[in-house]
Amino acid sequence: MNHALDCLFRPRSIAVVGASRTRGTLGAEIFHNLVSNGFSGPVYPVNPGAASVQSVRAFGTVLEIPDPVDLAILVVPQKRVLPAVEDCGRKGVRGVVVISAGFGETGLAGRALQDELMARVHAHGMRLIGPNCLGILNTDPAISMDATFAPTWPPHGGVSLSSQSGALGVAILDRARDLGIGISQFASIGNKADVSGNDLLEYWESDPATRVILMYMESFGNPRRFWQIARRVGRTKPIAVVKSGRTAAGARAASSHTGALAGLDVAVDALLGQAGVIRTDTIEQLFDVAILLANQPVAAGHRVAILTNAGGPGIMATDACESRGLQLPALAPHTEAALRALLPPEASLRNPVDMIASASAPTYEAALRLLIADPNVDSVIVLFVPPVVTEATAVAEAIRRGGAGSPKPVLTCFMGTHGVPPALSSLREGRFPSYAFPEAAAIALSRSVAYGRWLARPEGTVPALDDVSSARARAAIGPARGEPTGRWLEPEQVREVLAAYGLRTPRGIVARDEDAAARAAEGLERPVAVKLMSATITHKTDVGGVVLDVRGGPAAANAFRTIRDRLTERGLEGEMSGVLVQEMFSSGVETFVGVTQDPVFGPLIGFGLGGVNVEVWKDVVFRVHPITDEDARDMIAQVRGGKLLDGFRGAPPADRVALVDALMRVSRMLADLPELLEMDINPLLALGPGEGTVAVDARIRVRDSLT
Amino acid sequence: MNHALDCLFRPRSIAVVGASRTRGTLGAEIFHNLVSNGFSGPVYPVNPGAASVQSVRAFGTVLEIPDPVDLAILVVPQKRVLPAVEDCGRKGVRGVVVISAGFGETGLAGRALQDELMARVHAHGMRLIGPNCLGILNTDPAISMDATFAPTWPPHGGVSLSSQSGALGVAILDRARDLGIGISQFASIGNKADVSGNDLLEYWESDPATRVILMYMESFGNPRRFWQIARRVGRTKPIAVVKSGRTAAGARAASSHTGALAGLDVAVDALLGQAGVIRTDTIEQLFDVAILLANQPVAAGHRVAILTNAGGPGIMATDACESRGLQLPALAPHTEAALRALLPPEASLRNPVDMIASASAPTYEAALRLLIADPNVDSVIVLFVPPVVTEATAVAEAIRRGGAGSPKPVLTCFMGTHGVPPALSSLREGRFPSYAFPEAAAIALSRSVAYGRWLARPEGTVPALDDVSSARARAAIGPARGEPTGRWLEPEQVREVLAAYGLRTPRGIVARDEDAAARAAEGLERPVAVKLMSATITHKTDVGGVVLDVRGGPAAANAFRTIRDRLTERGLEGEMSGVLVQEMFSSGVETFVGVTQDPVFGPLIGFGLGGVNVEVWKDVVFRVHPITDEDARDMIAQVRGGKLLDGFRGAPPADRVALVDALMRVSRMLADLPELLEMDINPLLALGPGEGTVAVDARIRVRDSLT
Repeated sequence: MNHALDCLFRPRSIAVVGASRTRGTLGAEIFHNLVSNGFSGPVYPVNPGAASVQSVRAFGTVLEIPDPVDLAILVVPQKRVLPAVEDCGRKGVRGVVVISAGFGETGLAGRALQDELMARVHAHGMRLIGPNCLGILNTDPAISMDATFAPTWPPHGGVSLSSQSGALGVAILDRARDLGIGISQFASIGNKADVSGNDLLEYWESDPATRVILMYMESFGNPRRFWQIARRVGRTKPIAVVKSGRTAAGARAASSHTGALAGLDVAVDALLGQAGVIRTDTIEQLFDVAILLANQPVAAGHRVAILTNAGGPGIMATDACESRGLQLPALAPHTEAALRALLPPEASLRNPVDMIASASAPTYEAALRLLIADPNVDSVIVLFVPPVVTEATAVAEAIRRGGAGSPKPVLTCFMGTHGVPPALSSLREGRFPSYAFPEAAAIALSRSVAYGRWLARPEGTVPALDDVSSARARAAIGPARGEPTGRWLEPEQVREVLAAYGLRTPRGIVARDEDAAARAAEGLERPVAVKLMSATITHKTDVGGVVLDVRGGPAAANAFRTIRDRLTERGLEGEMSGVLVQEMFSSGVETFVGVTQDPVFGPLIGFGLGGVNVEVWKDVVFRVHPITDEDARDMIAQVRGGKLLDGFRGAPPADRVALVDALMRVSRMLADLPELLEMDINPLLALGPGEGTVAVDARIRVRDSLT
Repeated sequence: MNHALDCLFRPRSIAVVGASRTRGTLGAEIFHNLVSNGFSGPVYPVNPGAASVQSVRAFGTVLEIPDPVDLAILVVPQKRVLPAVEDCGRKGVRGVVVISAGFGETGLAGRALQDELMARVHAHGMRLIGPNCLGILNTDPAISMDATFAPTWPPHGGVSLSSQSGALGVAILDRARDLGIGISQFASIGNKADVSGNDLLEYWESDPATRVILMYMESFGNPRRFWQIARRVGRTKPIAVVKSGRTAAGARAASSHTGALAGLDVAVDALLGQAGVIRTDTIEQLFDVAILLANQPVAAGHRVAILTNAGGPGIMATDACESRGLQLPALAPHTEAALRALLPPEASLRNPVDMIASASAPTYEAALRLLIADPNVDSVIVLFVPPVVTEATAVAEAIRRGGAGSPKPVLTCFMGTHGVPPALSSLREGRFPSYAFPEAAAIALSRSVAYGRWLARPEGTVPALDDVSSARARAAIGPARGEPTGRWLEPEQVREVLAAYGLRTPRGIVARDEDAAARAAEGLERPVAVKLMSATITHKTDVGGVVLDVRGGPAAANAFRTIRDRLTERGLEGEMSGVLVQEMFSSGVETFVGVTQDPVFGPLIGFGLGGVNVEVWKDVVFRVHPITDEDARDMIAQVRGGKLLDGFRGAPPADRVALVDALMRVSRMLADLPELLEMDINPLLALGPGEGTVAVDARIRVRDSLT
């Protein structure tokens, strides 16, 4: 045993504590599965009330077993789990799988019991899966271990998977067998008291039989660790997950725009995307992409050729590809010429290539070779609808030959043939995944293409930024005051914090009365904006608290009066602490940069279009902190309304280099200042190329408790 | 035979012209299918070279058959089709199905041949399906006709379907049998030379065995007629379609914003939505929704209760429902109390209701009854994951009992049980559709809910609008000048056309020089906008052709100079015909109303947010002309950035009544003026409630050819 978890997945002997004579009970089914699916070593039933279980000599306790035991499966009532674990520890058992429920999942008392369980497991240096799980499984013919009570023993293959739900685990194994998907190892991880999904990721990283890793997750135990592990493992083995369940709706502070914008699932999507993990919506799509990645190379790009013997399915496949961001390129002239020589005149030589119903198996083989060789093509989807005489098997054999050794992925779709022809089955060499309808093939391919893009993307760097000063920012924030929900900084403090991180703000002067406002406006060169200052009113424009394009002293005094009058009308005059007289910029693109906290994932950074766009269109892209410059470029590129950044209607384009720089400075700020809870910079004005950015308005909330 | 198409679907006798002795040929397979699937009358093989075909006495021509023949299936080479049809006509055959290919689908010569074929069919008063099709099928036990060469004979049931692709038809029948979906009638309609999908819609409307109609379409023959028929039929029988294939990319005029915005598929979506037709993305989803609608009532609303015996699948179902716009309501207090009495303390009584793994069949039955009776609930999804002892069948029986007679739809999902338990099979009475995973159930349910919403929606009315004058508009447009691509109207003409339809425009004065601009500004009360006039420059702001908020004569003269200088800089001074000095509105929400032509569907009307929003966010909702006031309200409600219409940040809300009125006036304009090709009103300024709208800027292109 080379790896700490080998005691669980590659044991030489197993005891089933709670093995039962009564078929239909958990203890009977697990024992039965281990024996009937041919575990390679001895399986010892432990049952104090029976001399034998299912014709095998039984023992009263683990300690009575005369031979060494590597792994114990515990299927006893909850109150007997701890004594049984103690026995296992004394016996020298290395791994335990606790099927029994009634621990952390049931509340406070259960959680205490689980802690006690783990204390004993640690004391004996054991590893544990569960409690409250379905069991584990390893199809390696050298092990052949079915330590689950699921009725399904899947075929052996390259896919390993973990499930946080036992119930879904049963359904997943069942479906895998129906689809003929080869499984290497499976674990139902239950309460994850010891071994987690993260541990299994690392274990399967070093398992030569595992080519693809699948996970069904309901929660992240340690998302930061998951991120670190997944992005490393993902470089060599693709990881695909179904993540269900949302973070509690009320859990995230939503007092900032950023907080309100960051949808409940946005952090999960951001984290998985940054880590290169493929997220699918359903279990079926999970298998669809697994069968592709386990059997075919990753596509180098998004250009697909479609080969068909019927027009309708070809159109459907084209629609499905294009709606998933895949492209059907024009074929190279020499490919088209070769196809013309091969196919009847009625065939359509443009992509999708419709060979019409007369296409024979040899035609399929030759055409497939041509498409694979085409330099314009990154992948091929082959469709087949049986004409009268069904030669699906011959066509499948032809595809197997034509696609053998292809450096580009080949996917197939055999419609109306009652399933996958044996020649293409994922269980055999020369595997070509086959889907019931073209859409499933297109969806799986688009996910593989996105994974390939992640693999090819440089990781990016984090610039040094020598000109930032956390000390200056801390001095501006001042000492904690013990306000339990944190506190919003005053505008002067905000400006100082931004300045400490090299983020430019407009010059501005605080004025407490009309005269001061007039003097301030006269002291600034540009036209000014006069803005309400208030500790309590967050949306200044909602109360008429902003007057723009004010020119000269008298106009500024007038603006002060206007704002004061508007507040008085609303009975809010007591909330006004003065105005900020600020230089104005008449050009530039309004963008938005924000920070919010996710209760599970920590700080999120958002970028989008600013001003009212933020609230109306919610066009903000999030990443989990920390980010690299590549991440920042990605965020800017993914904004839907990006047209506005490109120089819309004759305006100069936005200074994208400066936007990346601003995002890196915000990320650095988060790294230096853990007290920073929330921030909205709106707008962050992006001036023309080489002119930089200006944080025209910003709000910052800091953690302010004494703990 | 009561209906003209009964000769095709309810014949008393059939001749197979081209019936063959050689199994594997089309002519042999169709004859074999008719006989082996037990057609209720005699089937006559017609084959001049054989005395008998498959042990049945054969005839040299149809004319030699001594008995009457209602229907002839033609499977002869293309060149023998016309003589055979002529024979059929002389014999008194009422219906023909032409399997043979080589007609309209092959080009000009084939199209001529098809015309000749139809001339003979019409001359003899016959009806025809095809040519170039797979055949037709009627599972009614009194008929039992399989006149296809597909290898599948589906079970009898309430779903009728037509397919424009023969190849896909084979796959569809195959899949229907795999899923156990009962089919009433099926037709592969091939080239639709006579009988179309529209004809079949009307035929199946009156077929008592048909409860749901499915269609696979690649093109609309006559979309307006489809619209009329579908919205009538859809009131009593749901229609679901897969429509693949896009309108040709270049076919739609895209010189207006509206044209560029109306995506290639937007007209199809609009038409189907307006007609109440359910559109699914895939064949699988088509069956998923068909099995629901054929067996369960339509939900009265979007509130779903989920009943499960396992947490994980419950979470997945919840996610799937919410992401499809369905809602999981809180249960009524009395429901929760009754569930508390029924279920163990570990169960979760909040929706989704997790009864935990110990739930028995009687518990399922009782809990299902409670959820159906809950007034907060419109539909129920029941999930089952087998615990150790699989009692899926008992649970299925319990669901059948608990859900019997429910006025609310009940959907089920049995995971990990190798398919649908027989008790729930769609072929038996007390049918409850069962899905492999919760997502498919949620997607099907959401489509059924949308259909129910369409059924419940009033159709709306078209106001009389006595104050419009097509004569005044026509006078403004002037006589056709024979410009082949149509022509853009001059601003004065545009204002006159809008005025003729009661659409308010800002007062504006054309000025050809600086002095005229100054005089014009002095003659208007409000601040003015000075706008470039040019027959060739369409995006005025792109060339700096608009100066806003101009106050007084000198400023207007200055604005004229500024615009002229900007054009001179760009070498465009020759394109300037003057400026429009126009009163400005400083408040109101900028909206967008547009018209474009779809080559297949005719005029489309679009509504969205105006100004730059149109181009940056493409937030425009389209409908096929003509629309009712309900359609107009829907369009306004569906705009994504609708927040801006609700009184954003203290601004007054938009006058929605006036927006509906404006859309009705545009629709009337289209009805009156077929020469109107394209129109962009951007912005259509929506003032505050009761204040109406102002078409600040608009462009109109009219058809201008002499034909």
